[in-house]
Amino acid sequence: MRHQIVIIGGGPSGLLLGQLLHRRGIDAVVLERKTRDYVLGRVRAGVLETGLVGLMEEAGVADRLHAEGLIHDGTQIGFDGELFHIDFKALTGTPVIVYGQTEVTRDLYDAREAASLRTEFDVDHVVIHDADGDKPCVTYQQDGAEHRIDCDFIAGCDGFHGVSRQTIPLGARQEYEKTYPFGWLGVLSRTPPVHHELIYANSPRGFALCSMRNENLSRYYIQCALSDHPEDWTDTAFWAELKRRIPAEAADSLVTGPTIEKSIAPLRSFVTEPMRWGRLFLCGDAAHIVPPTGAKGLNTAASDVHYLYNALRQFYEESDSEGIDRYSERALLRVWKAERFSWWFSSLLHRYPHQDPFDLKMQQADIAFLRDNDAQQRAFAENYVGLPY
Amino acid sequence: MRHQIVIIGGGPSGLLLGQLLHRRGIDAVVLERKTRDYVLGRVRAGVLETGLVGLMEEAGVADRLHAEGLIHDGTQIGFDGELFHIDFKALTGTPVIVYGQTEVTRDLYDAREAASLRTEFDVDHVVIHDADGDKPCVTYQQDGAEHRIDCDFIAGCDGFHGVSRQTIPLGARQEYEKTYPFGWLGVLSRTPPVHHELIYANSPRGFALCSMRNENLSRYYIQCALSDHPEDWTDTAFWAELKRRIPAEAADSLVTGPTIEKSIAPLRSFVTEPMRWGRLFLCGDAAHIVPPTGAKGLNTAASDVHYLYNALRQFYEESDSEGIDRYSERALLRVWKAERFSWWFSSLLHRYPHQDPFDLKMQQADIAFLRDNDAQQRAFAENYVGLPY
Repeated sequence: MRHQIVIIGGGPSGLLLGQLLHRRGIDAVVLERKTRDYVLGRVRAGVLETGLVGLMEEAGVADRLHAEGLIHDGTQIGFDGELFHIDFKALTGTPVIVYGQTEVTRDLYDAREAASLRTEFDVDHVVIHDADGDKPCVTYQQDGAEHRIDCDFIAGCDGFHGVSRQTIPLGARQEYEKTYPFGWLGVLSRTPPVHHELIYANSPRGFALCSMRNENLSRYYIQCALSDHPEDWTDTAFWAELKRRIPAEAADSLVTGPTIEKSIAPLRSFVTEPMRWGRLFLCGDAAHIVPPTGAKGLNTAASDVHYLYNALRQFYEESDSEGIDRYSERALLRVWKAERFSWWFSSLLHRYPHQDPFDLKMQQADIAFLRDNDAQQRAFAENYVGLPY
Repeated sequence: MRHQIVIIGGGPSGLLLGQLLHRRGIDAVVLERKTRDYVLGRVRAGVLETGLVGLMEEAGVADRLHAEGLIHDGTQIGFDGELFHIDFKALTGTPVIVYGQTEVTRDLYDAREAASLRTEFDVDHVVIHDADGDKPCVTYQQDGAEHRIDCDFIAGCDGFHGVSRQTIPLGARQEYEKTYPFGWLGVLSRTPPVHHELIYANSPRGFALCSMRNENLSRYYIQCALSDHPEDWTDTAFWAELKRRIPAEAADSLVTGPTIEKSIAPLRSFVTEPMRWGRLFLCGDAAHIVPPTGAKGLNTAASDVHYLYNALRQFYEESDSEGIDRYSERALLRVWKAERFSWWFSSLLHRYPHQDPFDLKMQQADIAFLRDNDAQQRAFAENYVGLPY
């Protein structure tokens, strides 16, 4: 069997790439380790930059997003007992759209199925062969049988734990990593959001985030110890702690209820360089992880998809490999900007175990400068709505 | 003997305060531990914000500053082998003026002497009495004799090691401090500056700064180990190391020569709160220290002088103690902003012993964002030329 492209990983970046390529007549198969239902059961953030929305439009899958997505013209920051507002629309001309990553993935699967594009689920033992040569192929097992797909290129969209990055020899890549000394305890509840915008809160007790899926489904997070377990936190304890971390004006109007999901996620910054090895391209979490503060994960995956899609289009439509040759450089330039923003915004909002009183004063001065300075707000807003591709 | 105000410390902040008060008919004596010549022998930075220039004008001592000061419309940042420019004038409408702190002090002494204002040099064993009561006084020794001055208020302008801050009981103040794991090795040389603007350079070998006093007197600094001694560094070694740390376009035109001063200074961030205790007000280095990156030391002392001068004027001219009651709060609000900027700008440019590869990437991304983003440049420029009082 042969396809022009093998996309490893049926998450949003692999699916988006596949759909974009399909619209240009470029043929790609998607290999997914899990089932479709498993993938669609993963709950993830959903704040979409304009760039990602544009790619969804170009892929022909933006109708539901525009009908159901919530347009957020700004965000709220909780600091020193009060909320302050950053007005993305006024500062940059652009809002963001709140639309669950699960919904993005569902729309992409629906489009993929409607176009009868080949997706293989439940594949195992995926191996990438000869990515550094001219005739690469991918082998895998499915239902106990061995399969092989020959191809021109491989898109490694299989996440942080996937095989794609591991296929690049250690001597040919450099990895950069930072782990954070805390996690995020997140809950989902069928309650109306506390505010029509997101609230990112710095408090003496640690970070909190008030987010949402829709007008009756809220997502809340609090910074917690990495040693905590979700079952240690009763709903009552969670809501009480959340209220202590957000300004009174928000806490007073918080509607609580039973939580329908409760989990703890660690925070990590990670980048591998380069993002291309021969005919293998890394995309999204396979190449980089950001802490969730600022919602850059999916959006940065989308920026990789943008560069890779355009590189492949240039290759097939114009017989020009310039985009392919420069994919890693172009993608990484924007990746590091998103890494910087996510790292900085995390450092602005969390309590760290080793912060001394001077460090805390610097953190407070940093937030106060963001609150009080127009230029700093504009730099923040430009990052939040997404730097240009 | 009695004066309305006793100013402890005959450095630039004490002298500037004295001169401003004199112009409003408020009577102040200045006590200085050293001799006039000693004070004028101290070499210090000299990048003046508009706010400080305005105070010098109000004090009637700005003529020479305007005649001899160098107007700098921007600054150069060395990064990744190249220089980039930040245009203060275009971004904020305001330049800075390069004029040595020693010259500021000299102009203030000349004015003080011309007005026959009382200054006591070589004073020793200064003690502040009853600052928390209604009738404070200051005692000191001079030429073996004991002296006492009764006053309404005391301005503690006697620097980090002075008695003023120490007079405030430990239980009544909170101190915040950060020390940096490196120093600045600075030289003065009778050579033309390498560039008509300052160059702040980040390099794999550490920080370097190319500054100047005038068109034939240059001041250069390089980050060095705290364990280094000036005598370890020959002129040849200094110039060679400086050249390695600045972009080639600057290194190639660097004119070297014998150095006429060579010293190593540690870097420190420090703030004490509050800045007022009863009838004692702390001003400048007595209350706060910044690392020299960004030249905020003298300028932040000047902002204290601004608030204290206006508070005292309000008290004597309008019998209103509002400015005095709020002095500490107002001064500290701006102090913390300058502390934040100096700490951040230091972190942007130096190599730190414990930086891991990810930390270095974040530093590089931070500088690249400053280089590439207009809003970030404006936030930088607003800080550099001086935030509003």
